[in-house]
Amino acid sequence: MNLNLNALIAKNLPNQLEGKVASYIPALAQVNPNQLGIALYDLKNQQIIEAGDSEVRFAIESISKVITLLWAIKKLGLKEVFNYVGSRQTGFAFNSILNMEINKDEHPLNPFVNVGAIMTTSLIVEDKQACVHPFEEILTFAKEICHDPDIYLDDTIYHSEKRTGDLNRSLAYYLKSEKMMIAEVEPSLDTYFKQCSIMVTTKSLANLGAVLANDGIKPWDGKRIISSESATATKSLMMTTGLYNQSGTYSRLIGVPTKSGVGGGLVSAAPHKFGIGIFSPALNNEGNSVAGLTLLEDVANKLDLNIFK
Amino acid sequence: MNLNLNALIAKNLPNQLEGKVASYIPALAQVNPNQLGIALYDLKNQQIIEAGDSEVRFAIESISKVITLLWAIKKLGLKEVFNYVGSRQTGFAFNSILNMEINKDEHPLNPFVNVGAIMTTSLIVEDKQACVHPFEEILTFAKEICHDPDIYLDDTIYHSEKRTGDLNRSLAYYLKSEKMMIAEVEPSLDTYFKQCSIMVTTKSLANLGAVLANDGIKPWDGKRIISSESATATKSLMMTTGLYNQSGTYSRLIGVPTKSGVGGGLVSAAPHKFGIGIFSPALNNEGNSVAGLTLLEDVANKLDLNIFK
Amino acid sequence: MNLNLNALIAKNLPNQLEGKVASYIPALAQVNPNQLGIALYDLKNQQIIEAGDSEVRFAIESISKVITLLWAIKKLGLKEVFNYVGSRQTGFAFNSILNMEINKDEHPLNPFVNVGAIMTTSLIVEDKQACVHPFEEILTFAKEICHDPDIYLDDTIYHSEKRTGDLNRSLAYYLKSEKMMIAEVEPSLDTYFKQCSIMVTTKSLANLGAVLANDGIKPWDGKRIISSESATATKSLMMTTGLYNQSGTYSRLIGVPTKSGVGGGLVSAAPHKFGIGIFSPALNNEGNSVAGLTLLEDVANKLDLNIFK
Amino acid sequence: MNLNLNALIAKNLPNQLEGKVASYIPALAQVNPNQLGIALYDLKNQQIIEAGDSEVRFAIESISKVITLLWAIKKLGLKEVFNYVGSRQTGFAFNSILNMEINKDEHPLNPFVNVGAIMTTSLIVEDKQACVHPFEEILTFAKEICHDPDIYLDDTIYHSEKRTGDLNRSLAYYLKSEKMMIAEVEPSLDTYFKQCSIMVTTKSLANLGAVLANDGIKPWDGKRIISSESATATKSLMMTTGLYNQSGTYSRLIGVPTKSGVGGGLVSAAPHKFGIGIFSPALNNEGNSVAGLTLLEDVANKLDLNIFK
Repeated sequence: MNLNLNALIAKNLPNQLEGKVASYIPALAQVNPNQLGIALYDLKNQQIIEAGDSEVRFAIESISKVITLLWAIKKLGLKEVFNYVGSRQTGFAFNSILNMEINKDEHPLNPFVNVGAIMTTSLIVEDKQACVHPFEEILTFAKEICHDPDIYLDDTIYHSEKRTGDLNRSLAYYLKSEKMMIAEVEPSLDTYFKQCSIMVTTKSLANLGAVLANDGIKPWDGKRIISSESATATKSLMMTTGLYNQSGTYSRLIGVPTKSGVGGGLVSAAPHKFGIGIFSPALNNEGNSVAGLTLLEDVANKLDLNIFK
Repeated sequence: MNLNLNALIAKNLPNQLEGKVASYIPALAQVNPNQLGIALYDLKNQQIIEAGDSEVRFAIESISKVITLLWAIKKLGLKEVFNYVGSRQTGFAFNSILNMEINKDEHPLNPFVNVGAIMTTSLIVEDKQACVHPFEEILTFAKEICHDPDIYLDDTIYHSEKRTGDLNRSLAYYLKSEKMMIAEVEPSLDTYFKQCSIMVTTKSLANLGAVLANDGIKPWDGKRIISSESATATKSLMMTTGLYNQSGTYSRLIGVPTKSGVGGGLVSAAPHKFGIGIFSPALNNEGNSVAGLTLLEDVANKLDLNIFK
Repeated sequence: MNLNLNALIAKNLPNQLEGKVASYIPALAQVNPNQLGIALYDLKNQQIIEAGDSEVRFAIESISKVITLLWAIKKLGLKEVFNYVGSRQTGFAFNSILNMEINKDEHPLNPFVNVGAIMTTSLIVEDKQACVHPFEEILTFAKEICHDPDIYLDDTIYHSEKRTGDLNRSLAYYLKSEKMMIAEVEPSLDTYFKQCSIMVTTKSLANLGAVLANDGIKPWDGKRIISSESATATKSLMMTTGLYNQSGTYSRLIGVPTKSGVGGGLVSAAPHKFGIGIFSPALNNEGNSVAGLTLLEDVANKLDLNIFK
Repeated sequence: MNLNLNALIAKNLPNQLEGKVASYIPALAQVNPNQLGIALYDLKNQQIIEAGDSEVRFAIESISKVITLLWAIKKLGLKEVFNYVGSRQTGFAFNSILNMEINKDEHPLNPFVNVGAIMTTSLIVEDKQACVHPFEEILTFAKEICHDPDIYLDDTIYHSEKRTGDLNRSLAYYLKSEKMMIAEVEPSLDTYFKQCSIMVTTKSLANLGAVLANDGIKPWDGKRIISSESATATKSLMMTTGLYNQSGTYSRLIGVPTKSGVGGGLVSAAPHKFGIGIFSPALNNEGNSVAGLTLLEDVANKLDLNIFK
């Protein structure tokens, strides 16, 4: 692979100056913005290459929505999950209630807006198979699909998320009042705040992306962890709704299924080619990593990863 | 290719009973709903296969938005066009003003909602290179990219569109009042109503899809007609916004870039594999061909065309 | 006064057949719809006249918003209260979040939509003068301004309100997340659910209306209980926002400041003339008492109460 | 009457510095902002008193909506007019389409938002009694109800309104596409642009207000010009929707039925007491005259005109 990752890091790192780290909780606001790291899982050559701050741990935040969606599908089946949450795109912000009320929707639009992700998590919490410790289940699954036993819950971030999570509470009680959510609100939110607060590296995300890119099979041991249809559906949702309001824009500009988190992470899955994890904590106004996206664009161009091409 | 198209036509035709032909103009309302046709341009084997009502002419309607987008990019450049229209997804209907007013958007969301398509057409009408006959230009281009010299303007449909086009007038005057549109409203709308009223067959659309799937090169003569980046961007937009409010849903279910029209047509582009044209005039509530979509799903599954897989 | 109230009751009672009693909690759903009562406090002749089911107790529901607004103004001053809540009309339902999010409002629109009433109650809960028992304060004030020592909290209704109050929770957490509400959410909601569950009669409401109509002075003892400006502002708000989405419509049709509740009550204040309480539990789609409004229209016409005339 | 109007003019004129004259057309942008005038028609003493720039002519703009509403009711009857336009309040701007599309309304909300006023004018244009010259009819009626034979159409303003009226065109075509408007769009708009461009003084408006305050009878000759119910309904609408988004706010602060125009005019009707015309062209962000409103508030307080008091 003819790719000078260090040069690309050096080229794109200064772009972070155009962004700002998430400031709604102190633990995120204190992160050093001057970081950029990348890890690529190369499916063809079965190797991980990495550069920059690839080993730094950061909060997974919204990327956890990918993991809980996959876990919910694994437990309940794809059809059952999509009985409770749509696959529709939205023109509004990730934390908006507007669309549902205006369109009198029967379901949250999709599993990657907050209201849909809370719904997905509530399905795990409510699961009839006596799910006693929903977060522990999710954490165990996250460690396995990210091939990273060191993933852990950051208590400071979790308590901050919980303390400042009133907009998510508002969304959850809206779901409850409209009879869309069956599980109890508070345990669902508690699990949701915890899943957002787990700490990963770009390598954890490159592994996650590699499983998605590899049709649901862990490339490191050749064992299937999620169904093929689950991996395919999730890549579609990452393309149409993975980058909040910029999903359509970056589908046109980059063309690789990608999910972002306000911790500064990006996970991408280029089918049959690469799983990619990127980290740079300074965000644009829409909540996506500035330097992360420009780096991803460069990498996608050089490796010819645009699936529409 | 191991594909019994006639069997698939027979299987899917009855699904048209769940839909209704577009009724807003008499010329569309009189179309026989009991039709289903398909043409596939097989890039590998350089052949077209077809079945059912594949030679029936029907109104292209919103699929013309693909053609005018490509023509506008060819004339003005991709960058210039996307200075005037976004690439953003929407959660509202194709003819809604809501999103723009709520979000105080500076541009129409994307070229495949009505307000964005009118914008794109107005760019052609306004083109500084003294575009004297904008519709004639578009028609000539359509014949070439669809490899179909018999495409023609249906005067009855055009006059009906024009007579009943008040919602499009409302959208166009909104663009004008917000200084988004520079061209005059009435000539822009006139061109728009004409482009919606050209008559194509599934083979015309299979050819159009084949050019998009073939990176912008006409497979029948090996000559490039549109740039590679233009073909790539258009396939991305077809995926994220090509099927109105159901774009996200069918991205998950089918995973092939597709644009629909209320005439009952569908054009799909499976990169490097197939261009597909489908026709069945009975529509679901969101304005997409019912039997057309189920047939496309079957074909995409059998030919393994989902680009997320 | 030349007014045959019994005849008007008989004439208007059948209109209840066009409505339905509120069904969101069992305690309200079990109320007999075939009831209509009225009490008028005649300021000129210093007497109460009544007819029909004028002594039946029913849940005050949204009419409590008038009482808590008056109490909040009495405690904190009119200016301070309207620093936290607007006086703007709305085109949306009483329990909508839409308007605030669309218009990026800094305050709830007005004290008579749910989100504004929760805000007002939270001001009482938060009051710096160490408000230890906010609901008890409100209840004491309600008994005094309604001249009715028998007003009580119905525990069944209160617990039902609390159990089914998820939409109000959603609204309250939205206020909290936007930093509009300073008080704690749960105690504010608890007080709100209690205030909605107090039991009144048409006579209690006629007395409340009479105080408002009498410039803030209790007509039964000649003592001022609220300021003149408080009474005036409240009558204005009752006119522009007192009947949910129908406020403008009934301002045109009746022209008397009126507030409704989903318990089937109506309180009206015709300046210097009458305080009116009406009860009939069957509601129209907008949540207002059907027979109550037609009876009010008849009474207002006969007594020439339209303030725009 | 113990009212020093000159002192009130001097006190309130400086408030114009906080506003800006309407700038969307040159003819309005060139108006000198440093003007403030008032005329009061005193019904009790049968006299007009005036002060400041009370004789300056200015464009009536949205106040014409009052006149066309009254004329439409006079021609077609109150019931018929309100079959086509509602009496509902709105939380959006006067030129918004949002509310209708969101709520799927069957009618424009009320006759004082642009979309409702265009509807009302279209009823006059469409009138079955062969209304050949709708604007001439309106102009004749305006001269009579304003007791001002010198009212004239300003051609410069009219042509500017017409040239820049694309948002009104968008609204009108929306009405047409939803089958709410029966009349042709362009003649309706032409009449609408003309009615907005007639030139009045504060005395014309004081007379108009006096007719409304006097139950529909011209106080200067004792003859009825509009029905009592028409005058009453119009005063109600002025209170609930007369000052755009600030209607509720000024209902609370002033409490006198008032309609504003972006020419800087205000007309008020205090029932049985006064008709008031005010002019000061500098507007606040919501489109209402800044110094005009503060002067009105002072006058209403001194003359005790608040109808809720």
